[in-house]
Amino acid sequence: MNLPSIPPPDREAQNTARLRQHTRVKPVGALGDLEDLSIRLAGMTGRIDWLPLRRAVVVCAADHGVTAQGVSTVPSAITAYMVRQFLNGTAAVSVLARQMNAHLLVVDAGVAGELEDHPQLIRARIAPGTADFSLGPAMTAAQADRAVQLGLDVADRIIPPGLDLLAVGEMGIGNTTAASAIIAAITGHTPNQVTGRGTGLDDVRLNHKIHVIEQALQVNAPANDQTLAKVGGFEIGAMAGLMLGAASRRIPVVLDGLICTAAALIAHQMEPAVQNYLIAGHLSAEPGHRIALDYLGLRPILQLNMRLGEGTGALLAMPILEAAMRTLQEMAELTP
Amino acid sequence: MNLPSIPPPDREAQNTARLRQHTRVKPVGALGDLEDLSIRLAGMTGRIDWLPLRRAVVVCAADHGVTAQGVSTVPSAITAYMVRQFLNGTAAVSVLARQMNAHLLVVDAGVAGELEDHPQLIRARIAPGTADFSLGPAMTAAQADRAVQLGLDVADRIIPPGLDLLAVGEMGIGNTTAASAIIAAITGHTPNQVTGRGTGLDDVRLNHKIHVIEQALQVNAPANDQTLAKVGGFEIGAMAGLMLGAASRRIPVVLDGLICTAAALIAHQMEPAVQNYLIAGHLSAEPGHRIALDYLGLRPILQLNMRLGEGTGALLAMPILEAAMRTLQEMAELTP
Repeated sequence: MNLPSIPPPDREAQNTARLRQHTRVKPVGALGDLEDLSIRLAGMTGRIDWLPLRRAVVVCAADHGVTAQGVSTVPSAITAYMVRQFLNGTAAVSVLARQMNAHLLVVDAGVAGELEDHPQLIRARIAPGTADFSLGPAMTAAQADRAVQLGLDVADRIIPPGLDLLAVGEMGIGNTTAASAIIAAITGHTPNQVTGRGTGLDDVRLNHKIHVIEQALQVNAPANDQTLAKVGGFEIGAMAGLMLGAASRRIPVVLDGLICTAAALIAHQMEPAVQNYLIAGHLSAEPGHRIALDYLGLRPILQLNMRLGEGTGALLAMPILEAAMRTLQEMAELTP
Repeated sequence: MNLPSIPPPDREAQNTARLRQHTRVKPVGALGDLEDLSIRLAGMTGRIDWLPLRRAVVVCAADHGVTAQGVSTVPSAITAYMVRQFLNGTAAVSVLARQMNAHLLVVDAGVAGELEDHPQLIRARIAPGTADFSLGPAMTAAQADRAVQLGLDVADRIIPPGLDLLAVGEMGIGNTTAASAIIAAITGHTPNQVTGRGTGLDDVRLNHKIHVIEQALQVNAPANDQTLAKVGGFEIGAMAGLMLGAASRRIPVVLDGLICTAAALIAHQMEPAVQNYLIAGHLSAEPGHRIALDYLGLRPILQLNMRLGEGTGALLAMPILEAAMRTLQEMAELTP
């Protein structure tokens, strides 16, 4: 697989933005994180007149063989059910995409259930769910490459007509287990430290989920370039590809929660420069999320105790990004 | 002064909202703070179909005699200068009001400098700044009443034509000193605990500011119903009146930072039921802010290390409120 090259941030645009922030009609630093955000966004896009007007949220969906181990309270059939809700406009991500004026696309990277054609659905199923990674690899190396390539292809398709900002979301029953395994494997934290309750496990089932992840990491011993194939998911690979594709075109990517950030770790494993184009939309209630964000050196914009995924936390952060740029652009200079 | 009565939250609307949140297409609780917010907003407005579409931000401005003690890095003349920026559309609050589609009004409650007429300026100066409250009361009891009445009058004027959501902001060089004194007096914390750097004091001047507040509290010994007159400000009284007026009409009020929350403490001193209509837009970088929010039992929506005031943090929270209501209203019911 040929990965696209990712340009470094534009230092000149960053410096221009920093100088502007220091000379607006306010005390220096008084806009807090908005100032840092505006400087990062200027570096990503190379423009201080950039605004996140043309927005998309791409939700990657797939199923997970590890659900056979009882790691979720919810059956795999819910993955396809929720994708239908996304496309019907009746799920949380659909509602927030409308509010934020973001175009919603769903990528079927490996949903087990049946899905009907829909203009907002990209049908690109690699397989009807991964294999159970507590017993062996989640997918073959070739499938892992195909998943990442799928994300790159989607980026190729949606970015050139004109896109300013990309949010990445996901759906896949069992994917907090895959994400937790990835975060443990890459950051070196224990499954106990990174694993949370997903859709709502009690203590007994949470301990079981941790045990399944421990077993998966022992069985698979994922080396650096094999984490996605060994304990990942098709949607996670596609999300990593989307991030790499967007970053190569200087499009800022807003991350959502645990699974999305696990995908960012996979993208970062493949090309560390992707980090410069990632924005953490929010901090989810899942304990592994902060660990993954810290590893990537990203500070979340929102902290609303959300744990839904779908791209909801990424969408909610969009007005803050817009505010960071509008204050940079539209405030007057402080004149004594 | 006749205070308007404040109705209790609508329990039936709250219960309907809570039940709806429990039956949408998501795990129960997965939208985190959005769910709690939607339930509170339904209680305030008595409607689950409420949306914050018609928005206003009212910025109350005044000067402070305590600036004679050198508690700010910035001269009092900056208060009038910034009000002109607000009205010119070139300050942070002007930029964010445009982005959030909120009508911006400025209330001159006691600015010392000259201000020209402007359609968005309400000229109601009680005096050209307060007296230096490190030496005696900031204002007379009659002036304190006039300040609160001013806020009530502005609420009377802007709410009846149709307003869904009110953000309250302020401008007044020296007013972090007044706000810190109010927070210390009402919450019982020490000036050392509640006082911060304002527009950017160094350690020496921060210690001096703390000392000035200690002296003010000794000189004035503000009793329960005299806090505003003893150590407050004209804009702070007007903001308290605005909150009471909005709450009496079931209009949710989004608070901004330290000074706005000190005004909420004054409003709460006059009528504790106002709390039910207050939403904490953000947590500012000033240390007294968290203490004041905790006292009021309010959890901030955003935490962006901002310390600008003007209403900026309140405006930034508006899309989150809208998202809380839209997800409540537009998501489908989970059907097995």
